[in-house]
Amino acid sequence: MREVSIIGVGQTPVGEHWQRSLRELGVEAVRAALADAGLERPQALFVGNMMSGVLNHQENLATLIADFAGFPGIEALKIEAACASGGAVVRAAQLAVASGACDIAVAVGLEKMTDLPIDIVTEGLATAADADFEAAHGITFTALNALLMRLYMERYGYQRADFAPFVVHAHENAINNPHAMFRGRVTVEDFLESAMVADPISILDSSPVSDGAAAVVLCPSEQARAFTDRPIRILASATATDTIGLATRRDPLRFEACYASAHRACQQANLRPEDIDLAELHDAFTIVSALSLEAACFAEPGQGVRFAQECNISLNGKLPMSTQGGLKARGHPVGASGTYQIVEAVNQLRGRGGANQVKNCEIALTQSVGGMASVAVTHILGV
Amino acid sequence: MREVSIIGVGQTPVGEHWQRSLRELGVEAVRAALADAGLERPQALFVGNMMSGVLNHQENLATLIADFAGFPGIEALKIEAACASGGAVVRAAQLAVASGACDIAVAVGLEKMTDLPIDIVTEGLATAADADFEAAHGITFTALNALLMRLYMERYGYQRADFAPFVVHAHENAINNPHAMFRGRVTVEDFLESAMVADPISILDSSPVSDGAAAVVLCPSEQARAFTDRPIRILASATATDTIGLATRRDPLRFEACYASAHRACQQANLRPEDIDLAELHDAFTIVSALSLEAACFAEPGQGVRFAQECNISLNGKLPMSTQGGLKARGHPVGASGTYQIVEAVNQLRGRGGANQVKNCEIALTQSVGGMASVAVTHILGV
Repeated sequence: MREVSIIGVGQTPVGEHWQRSLRELGVEAVRAALADAGLERPQALFVGNMMSGVLNHQENLATLIADFAGFPGIEALKIEAACASGGAVVRAAQLAVASGACDIAVAVGLEKMTDLPIDIVTEGLATAADADFEAAHGITFTALNALLMRLYMERYGYQRADFAPFVVHAHENAINNPHAMFRGRVTVEDFLESAMVADPISILDSSPVSDGAAAVVLCPSEQARAFTDRPIRILASATATDTIGLATRRDPLRFEACYASAHRACQQANLRPEDIDLAELHDAFTIVSALSLEAACFAEPGQGVRFAQECNISLNGKLPMSTQGGLKARGHPVGASGTYQIVEAVNQLRGRGGANQVKNCEIALTQSVGGMASVAVTHILGV
Repeated sequence: MREVSIIGVGQTPVGEHWQRSLRELGVEAVRAALADAGLERPQALFVGNMMSGVLNHQENLATLIADFAGFPGIEALKIEAACASGGAVVRAAQLAVASGACDIAVAVGLEKMTDLPIDIVTEGLATAADADFEAAHGITFTALNALLMRLYMERYGYQRADFAPFVVHAHENAINNPHAMFRGRVTVEDFLESAMVADPISILDSSPVSDGAAAVVLCPSEQARAFTDRPIRILASATATDTIGLATRRDPLRFEACYASAHRACQQANLRPEDIDLAELHDAFTIVSALSLEAACFAEPGQGVRFAQECNISLNGKLPMSTQGGLKARGHPVGASGTYQIVEAVNQLRGRGGANQVKNCEIALTQSVGGMASVAVTHILGV
């Protein structure tokens, strides 16, 4: 298996792009990533997206982006893995390059969610749950996560306020990210006073509905230095799944897919959790941040919240997290978020983290999660 | 790049499965393919599907199938490439095995279309066109193909009746296929008298709206004989795209994506069109059959219809086609059709073609096409 490196990254700002189409966002990110690598055209294009059929009446999405990016003819496929689509698309592109089928591949994560009424978006997001046994009963992802957060608080004795550090921290980091959706400071008081969505989840426990696209260019590591003097190696790439429904799990507070994909990735890279300098985790809700930290073995079960309270996740902490704002404050265009994580990790590893640069950052882990953590894609990147 | 072989195939009957769910169809095909290979569990699952979000309110589809097939935990991704999803999913699985990331992968194509009113299905299918510049104006795929058929008839001097051989032939072959949706004979008179949908396309020029799932099990060729004494080698696998919109092409009667993917596949396998013993092409409409034959260089431009009239596509002809009924008569569950083509080709190569066995069949070509031939995936399989 050929080792694969990332030689270029690109992203659009995350936000409410009402004046721009799905294809424009995708093309902008693809072109930016190619320009960063000094290239004009890839041999293959992989598009990560969850809801373009439901929200944008557009499937055949990879063909569309290839066409409007200016390279019809190339191989182009869309990858869907719910909210983990942005991580999954990099996995698929990595497999293509690793196999030898192509040398230059672009992976772009893309989602446009804000053109429609929120009930349609909520229904669209619910397609990541079990349609027949969960969504059909009207349950939403906020409600499902609220059940988890309630159970977590009960089992481990936390209060809502204990989750504040995840939020304050993410918004603090987004201030310096010109691509972030929200660049204002959020205080513990703001968090505590924010409107309840599904008790105990408030609006500030939640990541926003967003539009955006992010892309990376991949090539075999042995060719990477021909394109950039700062290639970033993909040391590991691993996908794992769990039961799609929450009700059938032995312990709903244990994210088995997150655990398995992180564990496999660490094995591939021959690294331990303590070797990781930076983690971009799936902070779609505060409870998901806590459980993701635990699933990736950065914290013991029940200690994910404490881990954040003890300032481990700040830029100069033990494990800097959401260094450009995360899903919470950079924004969460679902099929793109996993790719944004990788773009941001690459920037940090290249020393392009700007005001939020993490010092001595040599190994980064990104984990993109879909559904009720029913699918997870972990990448470990290194200089 | 490791060569990959198919060691097991499975399929559900194609039809209107109102009493069965999306997941049941997928799981049945996956289990059948694994049983055929003497296996219980793959290391990775790839699901090809176009419209589960729009029609079945279900994304995260690969996780769902992995879960209900009995192997949560494994890597699972969904691949979308419009009506070529069923070919694309085998391409994605082939890349995974070729790369060395896994040894045993299952690719399953799956679509459930008949539970909804036909206008919803038509709208769903239109998501394969350009949403903003084609579908928004109300054009359907039947209408788009009718424009092509009209142009073809005008340019090359054909009548509607000239297209009959594709239809008569496909239905004749389906009689012996227990998995086919339509197993009745269709005559030239039936074809000529069939109701017009979008002039000159009648109901009998068109493939049906269908439910179904088909699956294949892949492993490295060097390991294949441990599982079966009749492995089938994937000699080539190639995807190509064209402009998504029909209006922007230099010549709409030239299917560039079909040409490019067939050409690349022939180059990979070091074969010429005349070396192919059997072709499963994308006969969604009679005009697509004709243009696909021409794009893959089996017939000269304008000669695709004549090629069929001269009986070349019958079971004992120069290039047997739609040997188990094709999309036309076996049925066209869009995200599954490309996988059905491969399953049927594998059966022929293994000598399991039943009453429709093609003699001396050693090399087969399958081509799965999406949108207005804006994406095509070609496989060449050999004993």
